[in-house]
Amino acid sequence: MIRQAIIAAGGMGTRFGEFTKEMPKGFIEIDGIAMVERSVRKLIANGVEEIIIGTGHCFAWYDELAKRYPCIRTVRNDNYANTSSMGTVAVCAPYIKGDFFLLESDLIYDAVGLKVLANDPRSNVILASGPTHSEDEVYLECNGDKIITRSTKDKASVKQHAGELVGISKLSKACLDEMMAFYTADASRIKMDYENVLASVSSANGGHSDIFVRKIEYYAWAEVDNKAMLDRAITQIWPRIAENESLWNVRREVLLNPGPSTTTDSVKYAQVCADICPRELEFGNLMEWCGIELTRFVADPSKYTTVMFGGSGTAADEAMVSSCVPPDGKLLVVDNGSYGARMAKIASVYHINMDVFKSSPYEPIDINALENQIKSGHYTTLAIVYHETTTGLLNPLEIICPMAKKYGLVTICDAVSAYGGMPMDLEALGIDFASSTSNKHLQGMAGIGFIVCKNEELLKQKDWPMRNYYLNIYDQYQYFLKTKQTRFTPPVQTFYALRQAIIETKQETIEKRFERYTSCWKILVDGITQMGLDMLVKAEHQSHFITAILIPKSPQYDFNQMHDLARSHGFTIYPGKLGNINTFRIANMGDIRPEEMARFIPVLRDYMHSIGQC
Amino acid sequence: MIRQAIIAAGGMGTRFGEFTKEMPKGFIEIDGIAMVERSVRKLIANGVEEIIIGTGHCFAWYDELAKRYPCIRTVRNDNYANTSSMGTVAVCAPYIKGDFFLLESDLIYDAVGLKVLANDPRSNVILASGPTHSEDEVYLECNGDKIITRSTKDKASVKQHAGELVGISKLSKACLDEMMAFYTADASRIKMDYENVLASVSSANGGHSDIFVRKIEYYAWAEVDNKAMLDRAITQIWPRIAENESLWNVRREVLLNPGPSTTTDSVKYAQVCADICPRELEFGNLMEWCGIELTRFVADPSKYTTVMFGGSGTAADEAMVSSCVPPDGKLLVVDNGSYGARMAKIASVYHINMDVFKSSPYEPIDINALENQIKSGHYTTLAIVYHETTTGLLNPLEIICPMAKKYGLVTICDAVSAYGGMPMDLEALGIDFASSTSNKHLQGMAGIGFIVCKNEELLKQKDWPMRNYYLNIYDQYQYFLKTKQTRFTPPVQTFYALRQAIIETKQETIEKRFERYTSCWKILVDGITQMGLDMLVKAEHQSHFITAILIPKSPQYDFNQMHDLARSHGFTIYPGKLGNINTFRIANMGDIRPEEMARFIPVLRDYMHSIGQC
Repeated sequence: MIRQAIIAAGGMGTRFGEFTKEMPKGFIEIDGIAMVERSVRKLIANGVEEIIIGTGHCFAWYDELAKRYPCIRTVRNDNYANTSSMGTVAVCAPYIKGDFFLLESDLIYDAVGLKVLANDPRSNVILASGPTHSEDEVYLECNGDKIITRSTKDKASVKQHAGELVGISKLSKACLDEMMAFYTADASRIKMDYENVLASVSSANGGHSDIFVRKIEYYAWAEVDNKAMLDRAITQIWPRIAENESLWNVRREVLLNPGPSTTTDSVKYAQVCADICPRELEFGNLMEWCGIELTRFVADPSKYTTVMFGGSGTAADEAMVSSCVPPDGKLLVVDNGSYGARMAKIASVYHINMDVFKSSPYEPIDINALENQIKSGHYTTLAIVYHETTTGLLNPLEIICPMAKKYGLVTICDAVSAYGGMPMDLEALGIDFASSTSNKHLQGMAGIGFIVCKNEELLKQKDWPMRNYYLNIYDQYQYFLKTKQTRFTPPVQTFYALRQAIIETKQETIEKRFERYTSCWKILVDGITQMGLDMLVKAEHQSHFITAILIPKSPQYDFNQMHDLARSHGFTIYPGKLGNINTFRIANMGDIRPEEMARFIPVLRDYMHSIGQC
Repeated sequence: MIRQAIIAAGGMGTRFGEFTKEMPKGFIEIDGIAMVERSVRKLIANGVEEIIIGTGHCFAWYDELAKRYPCIRTVRNDNYANTSSMGTVAVCAPYIKGDFFLLESDLIYDAVGLKVLANDPRSNVILASGPTHSEDEVYLECNGDKIITRSTKDKASVKQHAGELVGISKLSKACLDEMMAFYTADASRIKMDYENVLASVSSANGGHSDIFVRKIEYYAWAEVDNKAMLDRAITQIWPRIAENESLWNVRREVLLNPGPSTTTDSVKYAQVCADICPRELEFGNLMEWCGIELTRFVADPSKYTTVMFGGSGTAADEAMVSSCVPPDGKLLVVDNGSYGARMAKIASVYHINMDVFKSSPYEPIDINALENQIKSGHYTTLAIVYHETTTGLLNPLEIICPMAKKYGLVTICDAVSAYGGMPMDLEALGIDFASSTSNKHLQGMAGIGFIVCKNEELLKQKDWPMRNYYLNIYDQYQYFLKTKQTRFTPPVQTFYALRQAIIETKQETIEKRFERYTSCWKILVDGITQMGLDMLVKAEHQSHFITAILIPKSPQYDFNQMHDLARSHGFTIYPGKLGNINTFRIANMGDIRPEEMARFIPVLRDYMHSIGQC
């Protein structure tokens, strides 16, 4: 897995003349996006967690870019005017921890090149192409083992042609260390390009690194060093790249159901990875990284730990309810919707001593009444839903959980459809255990349920008898701690997707995700209001994630017809029955854009119009 | 989802002269494989369950092909000499049940074309390309909405160019019905090509079908109608196709650990699919299909039902143990290895009344002793492992289960690492419940556990109190029966992978899979015997799936070193400790070829040599 990239972007772009005097070459736009920004997006989409950009000429442009891409770290090569590309790579080198991609900044390329390098079993691989006739070719020469011997612009001098240098490589830290040792050993090397340093440290030239050349004969890519190359890139190369990449686009279905939610293509493709035994340390590290990042979204990883299971959100709820009530404990479950009722059902199956506090599924909880109940009952544990998926009602946990803690209760919270959708701080909220899943706001694939646990409370479970086996939180926790393995086979590919979903959540940030959801929700609320439809829950108590809409009074209303019409336009909607209150639900969770919600409104309006609602 | 394909292969290939006089054009080989066979493989890899080949000229070649591909159905167009391609499509039409691919037989093409069509949201789509200069072009003309108006060889006459006809389309059954009505309405149409029929029924020409043209400008493909076209296909087109497709190959890692097992790239890519709400009927149908096929591999689907859960094999075991023992029942668990012990552990967690029958983990069970125990204990239920994953020991269930049934016991069987690896018939074996998982012999992805249940016994659980919630078999069963939905969010993408894995298992057949495993196992046994290593279990009691090898006596032996050496060659191996017996385990489960096992042997030998073992 390639977790880091270096983009060498110190160059002055002098061959462009005035054009790049006050702008780095990488910011030249092709089809509306700067080359380097497109490259950054491709790296993120291919699972890179951190991109180190070595800057120099007009560095401020890159620092601005980094503000929009939290994964970018810029490192300035102050001496850029006197070095060449290796000087810029050198300033980035201290930040590299393992295998990484090394890219030039002034490239457009088919992203499949990154996949080819990532899938190459060899550690150090330079990407090459067949003839480009670009008139600025760098030719690679290799030995019989396809290990690089030389890089040159002098075609005639090349003995064994290995292809043209693209400007994308996959390298190991060991190779980079060797490059650095070579580069810094002799001051006269200051002007060397990185590809010449690579050739110099190649095992074919007496170095320790086997550096292979991987040629894609028909590779679509272009470097842009001057106006003619830019014209060629725009007219001849970009259309091929755009088409090649588009062929792998997955049909877009906008899921307006309350999860599993719409995912990006990059999350979908993250599932496609080399087979791995999940007991390998490499996979243990991946799970550990996922667990820590899942904690970090909502809590301090030194105080909370995320325990993960193969299973759905309900599996996580069951793990929590069955594991977190002490053997002699007494549970109070707040039931103000299907998911509160479900926690009570789970507790009853295990014969856990329990009371249920009932509350309206669409009106705020009566806090005083709840407090009185808590006071009266000698409870050890409070179970409550953060966001009720049936109605879109958000419970005020910031009041309820601290109150429960005041009376000494441990709080377990079904945060399945809240986690990741809005900023939250479990400790400040007074939540000890919060369950969720990979497939809602995280925009990952279904198959992983998890519980973010307060360490202090988790450790108390050490000697409690198990109520079940597969879903026991403490056993899963201690085994992973000891072995970096789950007790039972985890859903391997779903974890790779989760990793990518986390990378993308960090890129967007949860704050911005909530803003995007809120934008979608406002478009929805405006739209349905104009259609004369009413919401079940008052706007101020809603989450902005799920909106339960009272069905129109027209006798012609038929959910299935409405559903099928929406589906034919690429939107999936969802019914919602609550006792004798009939609703339908529109969720905006997942990778949904406001313009898509805006496209959905007229579809809904057409239906409502057809039944005489508006 | 496109589940069927028609290949129109009736043509006489007259332009090839003598070359195709006694062989259909589709059997011309390019790079060692007949064009049509390569096409069949691409269709299977892209999730097609049934391929209907319309034959005519030299039909016997296709009938032979069908023997190696169980998914092929050949249908003869007896009148092929007097019809054109539509006549061949017509004989296939009655077998089409929904959306399908329609292909010509004499094509080589980049498989991404199938993905593009499958991902196109429109129902009827003809694939087109940019200029090929092949000198046999069929030009497509369309209206402003990209709906086909005409197909012609006369380029000059085309008003609005839509591209060149490739010979691959995606069509709906409704469109095919309309084509058939048009074709059969007038005897003079007998010589029509299918593309002209398509143009005739197009909505642009007054028909009811919106038939779109989807152009891939730089598509790599070739039709082969004569010697010159064949030369062009081999020298110019095939290298591009082969390279394009190879770029998406996933790095091959051969997992010799006992599951999750090595999978094909097509199973990996099956996870990449349009987002779908798993409560949609379309997904319910997919799960239902998976359940029925999983049953069919081992039992009669009218007598047994497969109940599936999001979770691992252990989750399936826990579902089985916790659901299948009556409330007042008594369980006898046969423990002759870790997995028998695990079933006992699960039963104990639920306080199920239980005895454990202990037996050696590497020697056959003493059947008489077991019978005595069964007789003495008033048991309702016997739990036993079919194949002990820790040792590779296969228990003789064909003796034990019928014996248990003789005494009235219900038999629940952990078949996790047996199911799908060898032919079995649950009814004949006397097994009432058998658990397994998506990620072992099925060669799917981890994340689904399932239990194949004898209906008669399953229905008895109707009113039994639940011991847990998420893993209750009867509740999951009855809810799916009623709704075609699982109670809780299933691992959606893992189900798509499972579907593909089932398609590929049906293609290989379980009999042949067992033969392949046995070939791998023999290579392994020969290899380790030559190295002077001993097996824990006698060969005659082994499954051929997992071999536990006693570690060498050399004090230099270090599992981790051996593991890392193997891993650096692309092989993952597994430790195995059994009380104070030290072993390591080599599994051959999953998509592993004998030649890969043969490549592994020298790696192992090198290690054994390095520590003085051989």
